[in-house]
Amino acid sequence: MPSPIAPRPRVVIIGCGFGGLEAARALHHAPVDITLVDRTNHHLFQPLLYQVATAGLSAPAIAAPVRHLFRKQVNVTTLLGEVDRIDAAARQVHLKDDGALPYDHLIVAAGATHSYFGNDQWARFAPGLKTLDDAFEIRRKVLLAFETAEKEGDPERRAAWLNFVVIGAGPTGVEMAGTLAEIARQTLPGEFRRIDPASAKVLLVEGSPRVLQAMPEDLSARAADQLHHLGVEVRTDSRVTAIDAHGLQVQPAQGDAYRIESHCIIWAAGGAASPLGRELASTTGAPLDRAGRVVVEPDLSVPGHPEISVVGDLAAAKSHVPGRDPAPVPGVSPAAKQMGRTAAANVLARLEGRATRPFRYRDYGNLATIGRNAGVVDLTTPLGRLKFSGYPAWLFWLFAHIYFLIGFRNRIVVLFDWASAYWSHQRYARVVTDIAPARDYS
Amino acid sequence: MPSPIAPRPRVVIIGCGFGGLEAARALHHAPVDITLVDRTNHHLFQPLLYQVATAGLSAPAIAAPVRHLFRKQVNVTTLLGEVDRIDAAARQVHLKDDGALPYDHLIVAAGATHSYFGNDQWARFAPGLKTLDDAFEIRRKVLLAFETAEKEGDPERRAAWLNFVVIGAGPTGVEMAGTLAEIARQTLPGEFRRIDPASAKVLLVEGSPRVLQAMPEDLSARAADQLHHLGVEVRTDSRVTAIDAHGLQVQPAQGDAYRIESHCIIWAAGGAASPLGRELASTTGAPLDRAGRVVVEPDLSVPGHPEISVVGDLAAAKSHVPGRDPAPVPGVSPAAKQMGRTAAANVLARLEGRATRPFRYRDYGNLATIGRNAGVVDLTTPLGRLKFSGYPAWLFWLFAHIYFLIGFRNRIVVLFDWASAYWSHQRYARVVTDIAPARDYS
Repeated sequence: MPSPIAPRPRVVIIGCGFGGLEAARALHHAPVDITLVDRTNHHLFQPLLYQVATAGLSAPAIAAPVRHLFRKQVNVTTLLGEVDRIDAAARQVHLKDDGALPYDHLIVAAGATHSYFGNDQWARFAPGLKTLDDAFEIRRKVLLAFETAEKEGDPERRAAWLNFVVIGAGPTGVEMAGTLAEIARQTLPGEFRRIDPASAKVLLVEGSPRVLQAMPEDLSARAADQLHHLGVEVRTDSRVTAIDAHGLQVQPAQGDAYRIESHCIIWAAGGAASPLGRELASTTGAPLDRAGRVVVEPDLSVPGHPEISVVGDLAAAKSHVPGRDPAPVPGVSPAAKQMGRTAAANVLARLEGRATRPFRYRDYGNLATIGRNAGVVDLTTPLGRLKFSGYPAWLFWLFAHIYFLIGFRNRIVVLFDWASAYWSHQRYARVVTDIAPARDYS
Repeated sequence: MPSPIAPRPRVVIIGCGFGGLEAARALHHAPVDITLVDRTNHHLFQPLLYQVATAGLSAPAIAAPVRHLFRKQVNVTTLLGEVDRIDAAARQVHLKDDGALPYDHLIVAAGATHSYFGNDQWARFAPGLKTLDDAFEIRRKVLLAFETAEKEGDPERRAAWLNFVVIGAGPTGVEMAGTLAEIARQTLPGEFRRIDPASAKVLLVEGSPRVLQAMPEDLSARAADQLHHLGVEVRTDSRVTAIDAHGLQVQPAQGDAYRIESHCIIWAAGGAASPLGRELASTTGAPLDRAGRVVVEPDLSVPGHPEISVVGDLAAAKSHVPGRDPAPVPGVSPAAKQMGRTAAANVLARLEGRATRPFRYRDYGNLATIGRNAGVVDLTTPLGRLKFSGYPAWLFWLFAHIYFLIGFRNRIVVLFDWASAYWSHQRYARVVTDIAPARDYS
């Protein structure tokens, strides 16, 4: 009589952003049973989320159903559910309403959320951009601001409706501000009868001395020039000290604080780790950094818990290159994907009794788009560093994003949408389903 | 000294569905100032709304920003606003929060909403399909039903999650039921690990003896055959007597009442006129019919108020063909468009002191799609009546809808989406942004 077949090790992956998705994919041929849990049913291509927020793309173009992505990878079971609690001692993930998932290996890829630096009351007035619901909320605020300005008889109040403020000049803030200026100057003119949309002001407020801090200084300067050219007012060295329903308070590094009246304020300033970081810390005793990220071992595992790995924006990870000091890893999607692959490889290593390997981040460079025909690129190539800006950088950004977008169909859709937007200056996803929510802010 | 220029007559149009849009367009060259008011910012191509509800199209593909449609028609001002009250004596339309619009001519094209025949408490459990928000709600219910079934351990409860019930077998109900069967049998299989989506039941419940009542009997029978072939269980002669969070009660014409357990019930059974009908009746004394529609004069004006016209689903209009008895006009989009044109022509006639003309409905026939390769068509041509069904009818339906879809860009997008769905059996707009709302129904 044959001996009973040993059950396959159970791998639970929390989150299907870049890190979780890549970890599950990397375990394609592994003799494990994977359960992939997420609160939504789709993998979101977050680098293009600002395009949904600015009506340039429809949501389905950048959201791929996870279940469909894994239809042929039969060792993956997809579950739509929310994690309530992790029990590291019992090796179980407890879901809200849906029971517990036992695991032999756990990969936590729950990502990040907004941080208002202790001013959570600002969230109501200045939404951030992490999920599709965030993008719909921002899209509605932007479109309703123009609509309300068209109805407003009082010139001062009308001007306030035409002030758009983006807080934080990282890649998302720069993209948002550039695109808003494009909408005001190129998409909407001619469609209104009482206001001139081109008179709208787009302000980009940044606490540090320059935009795109992660870029070299000369590229930051070029980005600022390009923003200026698109019609964005850049205010660096300016801290936001208050936000309410009618505007915000700004404190420049030199000079007096002043107020900007605005009903459309977008928060692109701060990220905080998912609350699951605290949950992991409480069940494993893992240390957290100031941003709430889990400080992991070189191999991405939680100290004292080799069976738990943390990847992506939730991990405070270091890159380990032989002969060099460990370097912090930036919170970008290529890093999340690479961590996902390392965590998957380390699950396999443990299964096969091999040593796990430390995480090594391969930095291929940095790129940002600013608006029509404008962008900056800083590439690390085998032949050295390559920096360029303007139209070639914009084109490079465009094709890089198309290339990394998941799903052949979505690539065609996005290319078509971009081509049609480029030639027509139009943004087709200008949908407001109900005016009611705008009243909250007026 | 020249005499002062007389102000141009003010035309207010309420609603930018098919009737209102067509009226505004028909006044393109008229010496009038038009204000077009709607609660949303888009014209919705309602015949394809069921495709958004079933994840086949994204919302922007069938929603065109009204402001953009009229950018070149400079006598149109678009306002996003909600009508609160009509004052026929003062000739003013009062908006919620946004003051009053005086008019010389008023065209009311506010459309229809769902009717639960006095059982408004059913609305919570069985959403209807009139707006994009309705479509998103139904899409979420459908997708979450499969997701929840995948998580449910109890076989009986799992089966209930896989029961989909459509109430009402008019064109929308038939399209919904056919598409749901397609999703269960062709889109989802292979993507789940614990359930077989093809085991889902799709029931189409209809009070009258046959599906597609507006069609000739032989085409109704063919439609029922095609539904059966797609896997839909058709239950005609069956009245719904109760709906709750866990299912519904059905009373067949013969036999005992029975219960169907289901968490995904879709209401496609009844339409009621917009509440603006009652508002018009109270300010003008106009009669309403049983469905709340305004009973209009032959020229579509409100009795005693030649300056007010009602068009589209809000009008109980008759078609006037010389030598024949006036015939009721069906609530379909070609009728709404034709009424919009007649109302616009009558505004011009009054401006020029000519007699207004009675409305005459030109019926070009009737068509419905049922699902992949299935449909029925009943055309009225100059050479006589032309009836066909099956694949040719489906193809005819497809191209007719592409032809009438507004916006060149949207036509390409929809054609591309359909072609890709046809070949891949996939539906790309499968987006659920949050699981929370599903809990309401479980």
